[in-house]
Amino acid sequence: MTTVAAYAAPAAKAPLERTTIERREVGEHDILIDIKFAGICHSDIHQVREGWGGAIFPMVPGHEIAGVVSEVGSGVTTFRVGDRVGVGCMVDSCRECDNCRAGREQYCTGSGMVGTYNALDKNGEPTYGGYSQKIVVDENYVVRIPDGLPLDAAAPLLCAGITVYSPLKRWGAGPGKKVAILGMGGLGHMGVKIAHALGAEVTVLSQSLRKKDDGLKLGADHYYATADPKTFEELQGSFDLIVSTVSAPLDFNAYLSLLKTEGALVNVGAPEEPVSLNLFSVIGGGKTLAGSMIGGIAETQEMLDFCAGHGIGAEIELIGAAEINEAYERVQNSDVRYRFVIDTATI
Amino acid sequence: MTTVAAYAAPAAKAPLERTTIERREVGEHDILIDIKFAGICHSDIHQVREGWGGAIFPMVPGHEIAGVVSEVGSGVTTFRVGDRVGVGCMVDSCRECDNCRAGREQYCTGSGMVGTYNALDKNGEPTYGGYSQKIVVDENYVVRIPDGLPLDAAAPLLCAGITVYSPLKRWGAGPGKKVAILGMGGLGHMGVKIAHALGAEVTVLSQSLRKKDDGLKLGADHYYATADPKTFEELQGSFDLIVSTVSAPLDFNAYLSLLKTEGALVNVGAPEEPVSLNLFSVIGGGKTLAGSMIGGIAETQEMLDFCAGHGIGAEIELIGAAEINEAYERVQNSDVRYRFVIDTATI
Repeated sequence: MTTVAAYAAPAAKAPLERTTIERREVGEHDILIDIKFAGICHSDIHQVREGWGGAIFPMVPGHEIAGVVSEVGSGVTTFRVGDRVGVGCMVDSCRECDNCRAGREQYCTGSGMVGTYNALDKNGEPTYGGYSQKIVVDENYVVRIPDGLPLDAAAPLLCAGITVYSPLKRWGAGPGKKVAILGMGGLGHMGVKIAHALGAEVTVLSQSLRKKDDGLKLGADHYYATADPKTFEELQGSFDLIVSTVSAPLDFNAYLSLLKTEGALVNVGAPEEPVSLNLFSVIGGGKTLAGSMIGGIAETQEMLDFCAGHGIGAEIELIGAAEINEAYERVQNSDVRYRFVIDTATI
Repeated sequence: MTTVAAYAAPAAKAPLERTTIERREVGEHDILIDIKFAGICHSDIHQVREGWGGAIFPMVPGHEIAGVVSEVGSGVTTFRVGDRVGVGCMVDSCRECDNCRAGREQYCTGSGMVGTYNALDKNGEPTYGGYSQKIVVDENYVVRIPDGLPLDAAAPLLCAGITVYSPLKRWGAGPGKKVAILGMGGLGHMGVKIAHALGAEVTVLSQSLRKKDDGLKLGADHYYATADPKTFEELQGSFDLIVSTVSAPLDFNAYLSLLKTEGALVNVGAPEEPVSLNLFSVIGGGKTLAGSMIGGIAETQEMLDFCAGHGIGAEIELIGAAEINEAYERVQNSDVRYRFVIDTATI
């Protein structure tokens, strides 16, 4: 066991504070990672506040982890000390179900995916996330961060990046396709960059035009305010694909009307409350309302390689660990451009 | 103009009664069809009762039309007198929009598809449907009924058949796929036959086991009662595709839980009231809730050829015109196995 400095919420809704946790010994297929940077994801806040149901405390959040390998187990052949690596939302899964075999570990139907934090591993021990200085992870759940990507800007790709990359790929974003990104936050700004790099014509649908300059700079071709009713008139039937990164309640019927025939609206941000859906909104036009949750390990590697190839990292505000609680407040007020990343040397 | 005997609803919610209507002269690209049989679709009843909003009266319903060509316009080359033909839910569309050009006339975004009845044609004249003895239709909206198909059993294919065929094909029903048909009525029983013929493993999800013997006979491999809560436990994560033909309110979250990862639930029957959807039902598992509305003209022809090739017609109860009002009552009570078809010689 190794004692490691970390930031943890001691109880639900409590502020995070410095503490120490134990990391397991490096097993045959384990990798010890010196964490350099950890992104702050909105879901960290949901979980610290038990917004998604009962949680495990103390909780060390963080599932956007970038670091450097400092030790490998005797059976590890694909990673070496010094490699730049990342860990996302999961650190294990059953490895035997159809989904695990198909590289869709995030949808593991065996024992279920083991979350990077706020979960129990196969030995029944709680997992602790990236707001810490070291982590031990099985090699099969570690991805390589290509040289071209700075580690700090790469960290948010491990959740925000893959969460939008996966549905953009699956639902055909590319040349000749009109794609709207709904919401211009941590996920949304990555959606703009990736959809643009995939060759799609990209429109941002954001509440206001406040971030329009940023959106256009990041690759959007068009930018509309959803607070303006004219937006919905003008854009009727416009998009092949809308990726919604919004977790506030939305009028889905209105957004479905912006799709072309047989278009798809894919949710990656989920309102906590059920939404009201008029089924005629999907029947007329043969439309699709779908969901998507992060991505598999191989797909996460593919996304990192894609981002490196296109020079895409997240837009970040680098903070010290002492600023985590303030950063949480700012995330809840949508006051971040576009992702907080913790310099874990400050823990 | 030709005067033709028909059955019409003189006003909203009024019983249908015998009357006469005028059919236009046979134009250059028109076909005069001697209607032999007309299916009774649940949507006929919705429209007669103005359940879908303001309607045009008198109304001659009927968009499941099978008959024989008795005259063709001077420019018609693809049909001849004596040909066995069908007409479905539309008799025209703009022919110029992307959807019309792509053979998705049902989703015409130009002037919109012209319904076979309860619509205005391009000259502003009301259209009258299949509960009549003759109809004049542009050749582009007429399909051929293959010799192997009896006309009476073919009539319901023009709406019920294509409505389920189109999503089954689009969403990949075939060998190795587990497909559930939700609802065992006019559409559902065609869904069972077609999904089975496509090679899928077919499960019927019906309120009770009352029609189980029929379902298995028509090609279902399994049959479950949705009134039994054990059904939802047992079938968790089972299906690649569910086609819902039900227009009563459903707990969509429960049905989405029956899908495999990345499975799709496609609605062709639409509840009149909005449904409540928990978006986590689609996010976990990357699932899809989609809609589908009939099919295009070329696809309708493809469906008829497919059905003829597999010896598939509808299961029908043949009635005389005097029984139409009683049949409407029975359809509303789900008391028909599985489609009423009017012998139009009795009008």
